Amino acid sequence: MYSARQATHCRALASGKTASQVLKTLNGAASTSQIGFRPICISVQQHTTPSSQRNFSANTSVSRVKEYFPAPNAPGIRKTKAAWPHPFYNDEQMKQVEVAHRETRNFSDRVALFAVRILRWGLDTVSGYKHTKAVALNETDPEEAQRLYGMTEKKYLIRNVFLESVAGVPGMVAGMLRHLHSMRKMKRDNGWIETLLEESYNERMHLLIFLKMYEPGLFMRLMVLGAQGVFFNAMFVSYLISPRTCHRFVGYLEEEAVLTYSKEIEAIEGGRCPGWANMQAPQIAIDYYNMPEGHQSLKDMLYYIRADESKHREVNHTLGNLDQNEDPNPYTSEFTDPEKPHPRKDLQFQRPTGWERKDIV
Amino acid sequence: MYSARQATHCRALASGKTASQVLKTLNGAASTSQIGFRPICISVQQHTTPSSQRNFSANTSVSRVKEYFPAPNAPGIRKTKAAWPHPFYNDEQMKQVEVAHRETRNFSDRVALFAVRILRWGLDTVSGYKHTKAVALNETDPEEAQRLYGMTEKKYLIRNVFLESVAGVPGMVAGMLRHLHSMRKMKRDNGWIETLLEESYNERMHLLIFLKMYEPGLFMRLMVLGAQGVFFNAMFVSYLISPRTCHRFVGYLEEEAVLTYSKEIEAIEGGRCPGWANMQAPQIAIDYYNMPEGHQSLKDMLYYIRADESKHREVNHTLGNLDQNEDPNPYTSEFTDPEKPHPRKDLQFQRPTGWERKDIV
Ligand SMILES: [Fe+2]
Ligand SMILES: [Fe+2]
Ligand SMILES: [Fe+2]
Ligand SMILES: [Fe+2]
Repeated sequence: MYSARQATHCRALASGKTASQVLKTLNGAASTSQIGFRPICISVQQHTTPSSQRNFSANTSVSRVKEYFPAPNAPGIRKTKAAWPHPFYNDEQMKQVEVAHRETRNFSDRVALFAVRILRWGLDTVSGYKHTKAVALNETDPEEAQRLYGMTEKKYLIRNVFLESVAGVPGMVAGMLRHLHSMRKMKRDNGWIETLLEESYNERMHLLIFLKMYEPGLFMRLMVLGAQGVFFNAMFVSYLISPRTCHRFVGYLEEEAVLTYSKEIEAIEGGRCPGWANMQAPQIAIDYYNMPEGHQSLKDMLYYIRADESKHREVNHTLGNLDQNEDPNPYTSEFTDPEKPHPRKDLQFQRPTGWERKDIV
Repeated sequence: MYSARQATHCRALASGKTASQVLKTLNGAASTSQIGFRPICISVQQHTTPSSQRNFSANTSVSRVKEYFPAPNAPGIRKTKAAWPHPFYNDEQMKQVEVAHRETRNFSDRVALFAVRILRWGLDTVSGYKHTKAVALNETDPEEAQRLYGMTEKKYLIRNVFLESVAGVPGMVAGMLRHLHSMRKMKRDNGWIETLLEESYNERMHLLIFLKMYEPGLFMRLMVLGAQGVFFNAMFVSYLISPRTCHRFVGYLEEEAVLTYSKEIEAIEGGRCPGWANMQAPQIAIDYYNMPEGHQSLKDMLYYIRADESKHREVNHTLGNLDQNEDPNPYTSEFTDPEKPHPRKDLQFQRPTGWERKDIV
C-alpha cells in the first residue's frame, strides 16, 4: 500500500523537522539513513494517571472538565448551532491533504518564514523537545531517548491545546482590523472579513475539541495567557504595518500545523499511539464535522482537523498573493465557470501553496 | 389615521429630544405647547450641488463614489454574498417598531445612560445642532431658525454616515474580546460571539448603504478617523472592565438610533423631505434586505434600518441582563416551545427594553 516515497515521508514526519526540511528530504536531498531518530508514541497508560485513560466521549466522566463544559442538561446550558457550519469534506479529499512548502520569493516572505522558525524553535525548547539531543541519545541509549523525548498521546495533546489556543488569534485580529479599516476608509471590504473570522472560529473549535481530551493545569493556563497577550499585540501591530506579510506568516504557520497533525495520524497508523488506536472522537467534534456513523474515531477527527489546517494554509498563502486593498476575496466570490479549478471553501481543487493572483483576479 | 398620541409623538420626534425625554412627553408629563420648535426637512435641491439630486441607484452616476464603490464590472470586483444573510422582516412588524426607553435600575445602568447622553451632547454640538438656541430663534424668526437649524436630507445623511461609521465598533470589540477570553480561559462561549460579530457586520452594511447616498469630504473623514480611534480604545478598555455596562450602553445608544431613524421616516411621511419622497433605495440595500418589488423606496429602506437598530437595542439590553460568563446567548439558542414568546433574530416577539433574565434562562 505504501510507496517507498511515502515510507520516507512517514519517517521524516516523525523526526521533528520543519515542513520545508521534510520536503527537502522527500525530494531526495538527504538519504533516509540521516533520519535516525524516530520518536515513538508511548501510550499514556504507562505514564499518566488513570483519569487520562477514560473514553473522553463517555458520559460517565467526572472530572474538572465539568468546569469548562457543564453537562448538556445543566441549568442555563443550551446547545447552540455552529456559528459557521463546517463545509463538507469527503474521505478521499482528506487523504489527499499533504505536507507542503511554498518557497519564499521576496523579503516579506523571508521575514514571515523566519518568524515561524523562531516560534517553532521557542516551542520546541519550552516543550522540552530538543531534536539534536534526542538524535544523539538515540544512538547510545534508544530506550532512554524514548522515555525522555518520545512523543506520547499526552505530549501531543499538550502541544495541540497550546497551539490551538493561539491559532485563533490571527484571523480575529485581521478580520477586526479590516472591519475597522473598511469603516474609517469608507470602502467596501470585498469579502475578506468573513473568511478571516470564520478561520478564527474554526481554530477555536479545534481548541474546544482538544479540551475535551486534555485538561490543562495552572502552568499551562499561565503559558496560554502570556502567549495570547504577546501574540495578539504582535499580530495587531504587524497587521497594521504589513498585512501581506502576516498572511504569509499564517500560511507558513499552517504548513507546520499540517505537519504536526500528519505526524499524529502517522503515529496512530504506525501503532505508536496505542491509547488512541480505538478511541472515539469527542461528541463536540462529531457534531461540528457531521462525522458519518462508523467514521467517528479520533483518527478520523485528526484527518478533518488536518484538512482544516491545509485550508488555512491555502487561504492565507492566497491572500498573501493578492492586493490587500483592491482584490476581492476569491473564497467568497462567485466564479463564472464552476468547472474550472478555483478557490473554494471545501477541499475540491486543493492548492497547498496558494493560488497565484494571475489565476484568479 | 393618526391618533392624538401619535401626533404628539411626531412633534416630539422632530424636536431633538432624547429617547427618554420623548417618552416622558408622550406619557403626558409635558404639554405639547412646550415643544415649540419643529425642525423641517428642507429639500437638498435648495442647498446642495446638483450631484446630490441624482437617483443614487442609477447606473449613470459619475462621481467620487467610484472611488469607494468601483463599477460592478470593474476588473477584480465580484459580487460577494452577504457574510450573514439578513433575517426576514415583514411590513407590519417593521411598522410596530417604536421609540422606547429602558429605565435605569442600578449604578451600572446609570453610567451607561450618562455616557450616551454625553456622546449625544457632543454630537449635537459638533454637528451645529443646538436645541435651546433653535427653540429661542424659532420664537423670533422661524425662517432663519429653519435655515440655521432645520434638518435637511444632507444633514440627516451626514449624521447617519458619521453614526454608522462608529456603530460597527462595539460589536466587533465585544466579539473579539469574548473570542480571546474563550481561548485563554479555555471555556466555551455559549454562542455570544456570533451575534456580536453579526451586529457589527449589519452596522457596516448600514454605513455602506448611506455612502451610496453621500460622499464624505476630508473633514468628515478625519472626524471619523479620530472618533473610531477614541471609541475603539474606550470600548476595548470598558469591555474588559464591565461587559455588562457596555451592553447596556449599546442598548441606550440604539434607543437613540431608533429615535433618529423614526424622525427621518416622520420627515418623509410629513412631507418635510421632498427630495427623498420619491427616491429609490440604493441597489446595495435592495440586495441586502431582499426588498420586494414595489417596496424599494428610500422610506422602505429606513424602516428596515430602524428595525435593525431596534433589534440591536433589544439584543444588547438582553445581554446586559445576563450573566456574562455563564448564560447562553438566547438569540442563538433553541427553545423547547417555539410558540411561547422568546428572543429571536427577526422581528417576531419584539421586546424593545430587552428580555429579563428570569424569562429566558
Ligand atoms: Fe487548528
Ligand atoms: Fe490553522
Ligand atoms: Fe446602524
Ligand atoms: Fe445599531
